[in-house]
Amino acid sequence: MKQDKAFVKEITPQSEDFSRWYIDAIKKAELMDYTPVRGCIVFKPDGFELWERIQAAMDKRFKETGHRNAYFPMLIPESFFQKEKEHIEGFNPELPWVTEAGGEPLEEKLALRPTSETIIGHMYSQWIQSYRDLPVLINQWANVFRWEKRTMPFLRTSEFLWQEGHTAHATEEEAREETMQMLEIYREVVEQELAIPVWKGQKTPSERFAGAIDTYSIEAMMKDGKAVQAGTSHYLGENFARGFEIKFLDRDNQFKYVHTTSWGSSTRLIGAMIMVHGDDRGLAFPPRMAPTQVVMIPVGPMKLREQVMTAFDPLFDALKAAGVRVRADLREETPGWKFNEWEMRGVPIRLEIGPRDVENGQVILARRDTGEKVTVPIAGAAEAVTKLLEEIQQNMYDKAVAFRDEHSHLEIDTLEQLHAHIAACESDKKPSGWVLAGWCGEDECEAKVKEETKFTSRNIPFDPPVEKKTCITCGAEAKHTVWFARAY
Amino acid sequence: MKQDKAFVKEITPQSEDFSRWYIDAIKKAELMDYTPVRGCIVFKPDGFELWERIQAAMDKRFKETGHRNAYFPMLIPESFFQKEKEHIEGFNPELPWVTEAGGEPLEEKLALRPTSETIIGHMYSQWIQSYRDLPVLINQWANVFRWEKRTMPFLRTSEFLWQEGHTAHATEEEAREETMQMLEIYREVVEQELAIPVWKGQKTPSERFAGAIDTYSIEAMMKDGKAVQAGTSHYLGENFARGFEIKFLDRDNQFKYVHTTSWGSSTRLIGAMIMVHGDDRGLAFPPRMAPTQVVMIPVGPMKLREQVMTAFDPLFDALKAAGVRVRADLREETPGWKFNEWEMRGVPIRLEIGPRDVENGQVILARRDTGEKVTVPIAGAAEAVTKLLEEIQQNMYDKAVAFRDEHSHLEIDTLEQLHAHIAACESDKKPSGWVLAGWCGEDECEAKVKEETKFTSRNIPFDPPVEKKTCITCGAEAKHTVWFARAY
Repeated sequence: MKQDKAFVKEITPQSEDFSRWYIDAIKKAELMDYTPVRGCIVFKPDGFELWERIQAAMDKRFKETGHRNAYFPMLIPESFFQKEKEHIEGFNPELPWVTEAGGEPLEEKLALRPTSETIIGHMYSQWIQSYRDLPVLINQWANVFRWEKRTMPFLRTSEFLWQEGHTAHATEEEAREETMQMLEIYREVVEQELAIPVWKGQKTPSERFAGAIDTYSIEAMMKDGKAVQAGTSHYLGENFARGFEIKFLDRDNQFKYVHTTSWGSSTRLIGAMIMVHGDDRGLAFPPRMAPTQVVMIPVGPMKLREQVMTAFDPLFDALKAAGVRVRADLREETPGWKFNEWEMRGVPIRLEIGPRDVENGQVILARRDTGEKVTVPIAGAAEAVTKLLEEIQQNMYDKAVAFRDEHSHLEIDTLEQLHAHIAACESDKKPSGWVLAGWCGEDECEAKVKEETKFTSRNIPFDPPVEKKTCITCGAEAKHTVWFARAY
Repeated sequence: MKQDKAFVKEITPQSEDFSRWYIDAIKKAELMDYTPVRGCIVFKPDGFELWERIQAAMDKRFKETGHRNAYFPMLIPESFFQKEKEHIEGFNPELPWVTEAGGEPLEEKLALRPTSETIIGHMYSQWIQSYRDLPVLINQWANVFRWEKRTMPFLRTSEFLWQEGHTAHATEEEAREETMQMLEIYREVVEQELAIPVWKGQKTPSERFAGAIDTYSIEAMMKDGKAVQAGTSHYLGENFARGFEIKFLDRDNQFKYVHTTSWGSSTRLIGAMIMVHGDDRGLAFPPRMAPTQVVMIPVGPMKLREQVMTAFDPLFDALKAAGVRVRADLREETPGWKFNEWEMRGVPIRLEIGPRDVENGQVILARRDTGEKVTVPIAGAAEAVTKLLEEIQQNMYDKAVAFRDEHSHLEIDTLEQLHAHIAACESDKKPSGWVLAGWCGEDECEAKVKEETKFTSRNIPFDPPVEKKTCITCGAEAKHTVWFARAY
């Protein structure tokens, strides 16, 4: 098994260097490649297909809840950013600017959108006149730009792909319902389709979206214990409505500002999926997201291959007919090499079939998530595969929940204890994970945690495992119970 | 019928001013809106949904022929454009440039992609080493930029949406087959789904894509007689392979340049669909593309509405269950207003149902394409609707073919005759249409036609209705038979 060893050496073990493992795994599996453009990656076909599946899962739910897609210009005039003060402060340092076009300097420079509240706010001010025009429920799939200093493939790149929903409502109540509805859709997609458990909660004021009244997020734990913000939903109040004069004549004949929301999720979900489910063998995809769900590999001596194929081909067709995303690997490489290859690429089920299996009317199903093998009759194999895929989906979610809970620390009450916890984890080379802490609500207390430990507040969970009583920094009475963690 | 008159006045008749008609119709139907960003439009939900349907029809066929989607950076370093000489000459005048980002000037300025041969060529040079890596069959859905002087919604905008396929092959033969295969897919989608007849053919050298060996196109006639290039497919030979050093080790152990192709279609197809099928009542969509295929409108006195709804609701459900995109208009406006409204929005079938219809167990189907009304039994209405939708699809295509052929002129042999033809059409206020002309193959003869008449060569059709014998300009023997027309 010389190939085997060579193979394993190519991916750095997670425990040795998690970031290196991540880069090794996604490069080797050909999900992405670096480019000569600073901080921009290529989404190669296997990486892009993951995004297509995430898109389909999200888009379906957006449409079911009455949203429609539209497309707004990518270039945003500089003056638009001035109309919401916090917004420009938040995004200005990260903007790339077009200053010349068609051989001439522009009169007003144009930003590459970091998000589209401004241009969409401007258009809404022209489209909305009356309560009859409300609500406006629009989503956009688009590329956006944030010129980040430090980048990480999928998780943080200068250009990325996302969806941004932008809605306008007659009342605060309705806008707040929308904000929560979309957060719940994110939770559902990420938990049910990507098999990633998340905490729904509210961002602290210091972590709010630039220009929002309230920001809510779903937060997920990676296998190195760090957090990824996997989706955000903002109640923007009248902030953008006032900046862009989005007013309507209400039923009571009064002109009023609309209440707007925005909500976004992005290609960083690809990165999260890899960091939650991958292991030292490489990637592992939950069946609902996997580009290939089952790889069929014939085994046994070549001279008996023809016999094997008489059972192989009809089974391939049967799986396809059952709606399974199946792929046959008939290349000349050894079965051992192929097993490694498809494990590394994260395929949930490997189906092995050799001459003896054909004689016995059976096949072997090998699970990527547990490594277990089961033997099933060929006759009912399609059904068995379909069932096993659902079982794997559930098991991957359950495993992620168990990992998360194991690395969630509920007993840390002071900064000293947090320091001690981090030191202990570092000496044991274990993830320091997340810490549930009380917080008095003062910005300085939150900032001090970050300053001293690099743990930042993730969110104030709606439904925390316990309620904390005292502020982790000052010891005063806690107003909120907050997840703190290092984050991507 | 006061509303009726007011309504008709809002859309300029096609015969009076076709461009005004176009803008009036798409604005009134809320397909798009202008923005403060020069030459950029908003694709509003009803416009964007057309693009989603075009995307789905194309993407399905791309995948069936073995292509996969990927995503490459939008920003392209200036130096990349230098690597293919004709390419930079062709695109340089139209490029917008990012010159600063993150608060600092860039060392090398970055173009907003007008097309992606360069960045993709660069990546392919790293991915392709051996004949085993070929072919590479990748497509990208993306926004692109061409800073045009004169813009027209959907047909020519500074930013637009498109797909661009980029493939690399071991041999010229295979690359040329790919070029033709994709041209055929464009023809199929545009004729079968958009109900627009096209001529497949080759572009003359002066109209070739910048950097291509051969460019092929499908060309469609609008209702004002002008042409729209509805899709192009390029055989690029080794041009980009040499510029970007895309080489592979072949089976014969020789390093060789790959042969590449590229092919694209864009949101201008939305504009073409409107200009081919629309009329003085507004838009008209072929059933396979229509966001709404059937609008159901209850008629008759309000006091009998309840009775109508007992038949209306189950029929709505039955149509939905049959896979029809159906919409019910239960607003308070008069039936007459609604009829106009949905005709203007291009819905193929209006389904009317009143108290007497319910008594007689029937409904009325009114066709957008012919204005005809037919009465069908409620019991079989879903089936009748499905069948009628197919009939309308075919009829709209046939009508477009008849219009095109009527405005295709095969008998014009000299520039003098062309001048006379144009003058006659102008005095009759008729579209001058297309002219099939002989061409000797000299650039000057082609240029002279354009200079004198604004008719440009569209393509050299593979299968012209007749073969022309002499050059329209110089009278020498014709090497090619060419479609000439004014074009968008």
